[in-house]
Amino acid sequence: MARSPTPLRLDPDRPLILLSNDDGIDANGLAALAAALDDLGTVVVVAPATEQSAVGHAITVRDPMRAHPWPFDGPTGPLWARAVTGTPADCVKLAVQKLLPRRPDLVVSGINHGPNTAVSVLYSGTVSAATEASILGVPSFAVSHCSWDPDADFETSGRVARTVAERVLSEGLPPGVLLNVNVPDRSFDQLTGFEVTRQARARWEEEFEERRDPFDRPYYWLGGQFINLDDGLDTDLHAIKQGAVSVTPIHYDLTAYDELRRIATWNWSADALSN
Amino acid sequence: MARSPTPLRLDPDRPLILLSNDDGIDANGLAALAAALDDLGTVVVVAPATEQSAVGHAITVRDPMRAHPWPFDGPTGPLWARAVTGTPADCVKLAVQKLLPRRPDLVVSGINHGPNTAVSVLYSGTVSAATEASILGVPSFAVSHCSWDPDADFETSGRVARTVAERVLSEGLPPGVLLNVNVPDRSFDQLTGFEVTRQARARWEEEFEERRDPFDRPYYWLGGQFINLDDGLDTDLHAIKQGAVSVTPIHYDLTAYDELRRIATWNWSADALSN
Repeated sequence: MARSPTPLRLDPDRPLILLSNDDGIDANGLAALAAALDDLGTVVVVAPATEQSAVGHAITVRDPMRAHPWPFDGPTGPLWARAVTGTPADCVKLAVQKLLPRRPDLVVSGINHGPNTAVSVLYSGTVSAATEASILGVPSFAVSHCSWDPDADFETSGRVARTVAERVLSEGLPPGVLLNVNVPDRSFDQLTGFEVTRQARARWEEEFEERRDPFDRPYYWLGGQFINLDDGLDTDLHAIKQGAVSVTPIHYDLTAYDELRRIATWNWSADALSN
Repeated sequence: MARSPTPLRLDPDRPLILLSNDDGIDANGLAALAAALDDLGTVVVVAPATEQSAVGHAITVRDPMRAHPWPFDGPTGPLWARAVTGTPADCVKLAVQKLLPRRPDLVVSGINHGPNTAVSVLYSGTVSAATEASILGVPSFAVSHCSWDPDADFETSGRVARTVAERVLSEGLPPGVLLNVNVPDRSFDQLTGFEVTRQARARWEEEFEERRDPFDRPYYWLGGQFINLDDGLDTDLHAIKQGAVSVTPIHYDLTAYDELRRIATWNWSADALSN
């Protein structure tokens, strides 16, 4: 027998907390996040119907989207949840601007299965969901568990997410700023603390593997390894290596302010225009 | 009769200029860009086989990609070109790391059909191609024509792209910094100059339109309008409104440096961890 959709019951005295992710609505990390935050407020879930890793800040502009009512068990009962046929950024847009009866007080995206550090922040759907919330004026953070082990245990990351959620709910965040949290793969008691960090300069060294199909036509698989080019002690990668939770404040103003003046000195005269 | 693929002939004395975009390899804006840059160096094209607007910095990690040899006419003869079954970021990765015999000296992405200003930079596949080049250490810029008119004329934007390409080839760019160029929709003689700008604070005010399918099930279309929240005279939006070309230096270090110190003062003690 199909379960009937869980109704959304708001409590005016409790924060409304929206969860999303990029691993999809059935991912273990999202269930662990819901369990960890359950007693902080009214927890609701709007997450992608299917895995959306590495989609970056993609949004769906050419097709309509569905938002399917979804069975989602929290630790104290079923949660109101919708599975959206779109990207993580779509989920947050649709939830905040259409599906929810009021603005959430907090958006948390995760728990991602794998780190989102250094330049990977750009590719991360997990981070983009939190970024979208920030664009819409809702305090938010992304949380990622630094392990690709298929049997990864999200308990430590859940307890960390709860701590960060409490801090953000009590301290607030400035407009346009969100937090990107990465949790080392170790037991909670083995964490060495929290470090407020910057994004390390690092990149993927891609190695595209060329293969041949049965008709001898080439195709390419993206592979490669992550290369840290940054030996700073204040980076996300360093904190995690030391066993600390990395908390990086990020924003979506991409302007390279340090370069404004220098580039303005280039020859931008009418002469330059006329060649 | 099928044309045989155009061979890639490098000239050691001329810069190698890679073009990409997000509107797809057959877009008029890309042809206009190739025509405008043709005499600055050896121009090659690696662009998405299909339109990839609003994909942000998505990359393809779950599927292999094809790179089809593609007929692409430049003003002085056919150009070496590949149509990739992936995103703009994929195209640049694959071109630089696999397809090209040497690193390009410049990557130019565009000419996008429509502006990429303010927060739209995050969603833009055009910008992500240039960002990917910067991550890989290649100087780059994105160029967008501020009109959605289906019959938009890219001649002005082409001349602007040529000017910026010359400047970047001669001046270089610092590591991790690229340029996001937006060109007003007016004739070249009507441009009021170049302005080096910052990304305006603005956002899309989404209005999701709910419709019902023939089975009375809801679906949602993303709609809405762009809202400028920023009356600064130094923004990309202001420059374009004044008829000037907007040149915004951007980077992909998203760290909100101004907030590092303040967030480090939050209670991140062991006590905070233990609740």
